[in-house]
Formats: sequence, C-alpha cells, structure tokens
Amino acid sequence: MNKKPIGVFDSGIGGLTVYRAIKQRLPRERVIYLGDTARLPYGSKSESAIIRFSEENAHFLMNHEVKLIVVACNSSSSYAVPHLQASLKVPVIGVIEPGAQAAVELSRKKVGVIGTSATIMSGAYEAAIRKRNPCLEIVSRDCPLFVPLVEEGWVDHAVTRMVAEEYLVPLKKVGIDSLVLGCTHYPVLSKVIGGVMGEGIRLIDSGVTTAGQVDSILRNLGWLNHDPPDSEDDFYVTDFPDRFRRVGGIFLNRKIARVSVAGN
Amino acid sequence: MNKKPIGVFDSGIGGLTVYRAIKQRLPRERVIYLGDTARLPYGSKSESAIIRFSEENAHFLMNHEVKLIVVACNSSSSYAVPHLQASLKVPVIGVIEPGAQAAVELSRKKVGVIGTSATIMSGAYEAAIRKRNPCLEIVSRDCPLFVPLVEEGWVDHAVTRMVAEEYLVPLKKVGIDSLVLGCTHYPVLSKVIGGVMGEGIRLIDSGVTTAGQVDSILRNLGWLNHDPPDSEDDFYVTDFPDRFRRVGGIFLNRKIARVSVAGN
Repeated sequence: MNKKPIGVFDSGIGGLTVYRAIKQRLPRERVIYLGDTARLPYGSKSESAIIRFSEENAHFLMNHEVKLIVVACNSSSSYAVPHLQASLKVPVIGVIEPGAQAAVELSRKKVGVIGTSATIMSGAYEAAIRKRNPCLEIVSRDCPLFVPLVEEGWVDHAVTRMVAEEYLVPLKKVGIDSLVLGCTHYPVLSKVIGGVMGEGIRLIDSGVTTAGQVDSILRNLGWLNHDPPDSEDDFYVTDFPDRFRRVGGIFLNRKIARVSVAGN
Repeated sequence: MNKKPIGVFDSGIGGLTVYRAIKQRLPRERVIYLGDTARLPYGSKSESAIIRFSEENAHFLMNHEVKLIVVACNSSSSYAVPHLQASLKVPVIGVIEPGAQAAVELSRKKVGVIGTSATIMSGAYEAAIRKRNPCLEIVSRDCPLFVPLVEEGWVDHAVTRMVAEEYLVPLKKVGIDSLVLGCTHYPVLSKVIGGVMGEGIRLIDSGVTTAGQVDSILRNLGWLNHDPPDSEDDFYVTDFPDRFRRVGGIFLNRKIARVSVAGN
C-alpha cells in the first residue's frame, strides 16, 4: 500500500488548496487529482446529483488504485462522504469533519460558517460542529457569488468587497468570533473576507486540518510512503485541461506540467 | 407532423425567455423543454464538452418525436448547431443567426455583442453578422458574472450595476449604437444594462427573432399545428426540478405545473 497514490477529487480547481496542504505535509506521497470541470460548479446542484457525480469521481480514482480518497470539495463532502465510505474499500476523508474540528478548537462562543448553497443547505458543518461541542452557537449563510468572482479573477476588486460586505456584515453583527471558509475557493478571498470581518475574527481553512487527518490515518495504517515518489503527480479533468493548467498555476504558484482529460 | 411538438433545449432555465417568445408567437404549438441543470452553466465549458452535451440533449428530444429543435442556449448555438443540423432529420434552429439578423437590421454602424465566455470565444455572432453585412463594426466582450447575478436574484442591485459598468462602459465609449444580449439570461438584466448604456443604444434580445424563424420554417414546410394542443407542454430537467419550477415561474410569470427529471 505504501507506494500507492492518494486520490483527491473536487468539482474543479478549488480542491488544489487541499492538494497543496497535503503535499506540504506529506511531500513523499504521490497524488492523483481529478477535477470534474465538465459539471462544475457542484454548489448549485442537488443532493442526488452531487452524490452521483461524487461516486463517479471516486470510481475513476479507484481504477487508478489509490490507497485513500480525499473529497476536497465541500459540497461533495457535505452529501457524499458517508455513501463513499460505505461502498469503497479504502479510507475516505471529506473536508467537513476536519473543518469542524478546527472550528471547535478555535472558537470560543459563536462560529460562522460560509459556503455554497449546497453545502449550507446540507447542514453538514452544523451537525459536525454540534457533535463535538453542542454549546457553540453556529450562524451560517451561503455566498453563491464568491466562486464566480474567484473564477473571474476579481480577487481584490471593489465589486468583490461590496459582495463580501453584503454577505458578511450580518455575520459580523451577530458577533461571531471565528469563520469557517466552507468552500475551497474562499481562501483565495482571505484578504477581502478578513478585511470585512476585522482582526478579531479568525478565518478557518479546512485544507490544513484535512492534510493532518490524512497523515494520521496513513500513519496508523502503516501506509505512509517513506521514499521519494516514483513519478510526478497526475492531474485529470473532465473538461478544459488548458484552463486548469493556467488557473491551477495561480493556485499552486508553480506550473502544472501534465493535465489529462478523463472521460466521465 | 403538424401535431408533433417543438423541442427546445437550454443549459438550464434561461431558455425560458425563448420558450416564452415561441409560445406568444405560436400558441397552438405544443413544446417539450429540456434544461440541462445538472451540468449548467455551459458558458464556462469547452467547445467539445458543449457539443457533446448538446448532442445528448437533442437525442433526448428526438426520442420524444419533436418536429423541430430550437437550441435556446447561446453557448450551444455557437458551437453545436451545425453538428446537430448535419446529424438530425428535423430542422435545427439556434439563437445566433436570428440574433445576428436583428443586429444587422437595427444597427447603423457599430454593434456590441455580450455573452458568456464560450459564446464570445466562439466568434459565432461576429461571423453571422459579418456574413450579412461586412461593413458593420463589431465589438464583443464576455460578461461571466451576469449569469450568477441573475441566478442569485440580484436583478436590480447596486453590485449588479457596478459589474455592468465595469463590463459595459468600454463598449459605450467606443460608440456602439446597438447591443446584442447574447445570453438568454441577459434580458432579465435589461433595466440595469439599459441604464448603463443610455437611451440611444438599442438592446437586442434574439428570443423574439428566433420565434419568428420557427414560425416561418414550420409554415413553409406545412407543419404548423392549426388546432389547440392536445396536452400541456412538458418540462424536463437533469437536476433540481423544484428549483426550476420556482425560478421558472419568475421567468414566465405563471406557475409551471409539471417538471420531470430526465436522466442524462
């Protein structure tokens, strides 16, 4: 098992923030990444569609003999992780549980959760936080325009600040002390989001905590890779490899050499 | 043929503006509408993906024995109409050619074209306008945030006005005299777009011209239906029928009774 790769899937490119955290924590692990760019975004889709897409993505990764699957998309993590855990023979990790864990560790009294409509409607973060600490107050809201704003490249734009104010000022007013960035695109907007929220409110990006959980599961199973990986990481998309190569370079601060098309 | 329905497909809900224009012009025709809500939006997808999705949508409508297919999505019309015309045995009409026809009739000197990234990158409007009048100057640009703003319901919002200014003021400055709304969502933003452009610039919505073309093709073939339709129109989506029913009601100003899920 040690030499086998870790599989990561996302609805598109945002999961690269989770990929990056895994590679920083576990540089010897080889990763196979799948971005379902033909059907993105997942955040505006239904539970049944998200589960079906997630099963197809996981199936693709299993055919590449991965030893563990990370569901890097919050919308998929909200709905599909229990289904995948029940049907697959490898460990499956979503980003919700690690994000909830970080929220419980960092919040004192009232935590905010933002994400896509699908993630917020699922109530997955609320459930995962409540399970750990039933006394924490939780305030959540969906921010559907953040993903298209990131994809448009308006990362530090007056419009983005105005949208962030519209979405976030109500959360600030109710007095949250930390804010879970419940969508992998949102860390790219940290500066704008932090600017609206002010210095006293901590922003929680679940990528780092997720990488920690991958580490401890592989360590416990004795499945960590101890040698340098045999080959480069593989990136697959279901549409538009050129765009993924270009925009992905911005997420990773380096060129992505190989991006192949995976038929879905 | 006269009794058979007209098939209309779109990436989602925007095509209802075209549906509405067809029903106003031809109230005796029964329509089967398919919205590919599981894979929307098409505007950020590649040419090959859009062609594949469009072929699958057309196949679904052909299985319902339609006598003519209207491609109500501009991104699909930009890339897929010639493919569909070559492979299907019924007439196929996109929204680009009728939109270009209207532009040539209404513009005097310089016409603007706005649409999704896929539509603008295709150059389909430019080609269709140039074929009719090589002397018209054409200035085009993509407006990727307009669709998510409509879907968010921010139809008359300060953010939408700011985004519209960012996108459209450069078109106004170069002196266009008309503007093709090259995406079926955009007519919903007519007020904001018109506010930025000012009174001298005509906005062109291709839905009405498309309905006119459907009328004349069916009339020439002798395929018009002369009796009241036998049954209600059918609406199919590939995901989220409840959302389509709710938001679709806003597009049509009436309740949509039956929305079924079509597996794709």
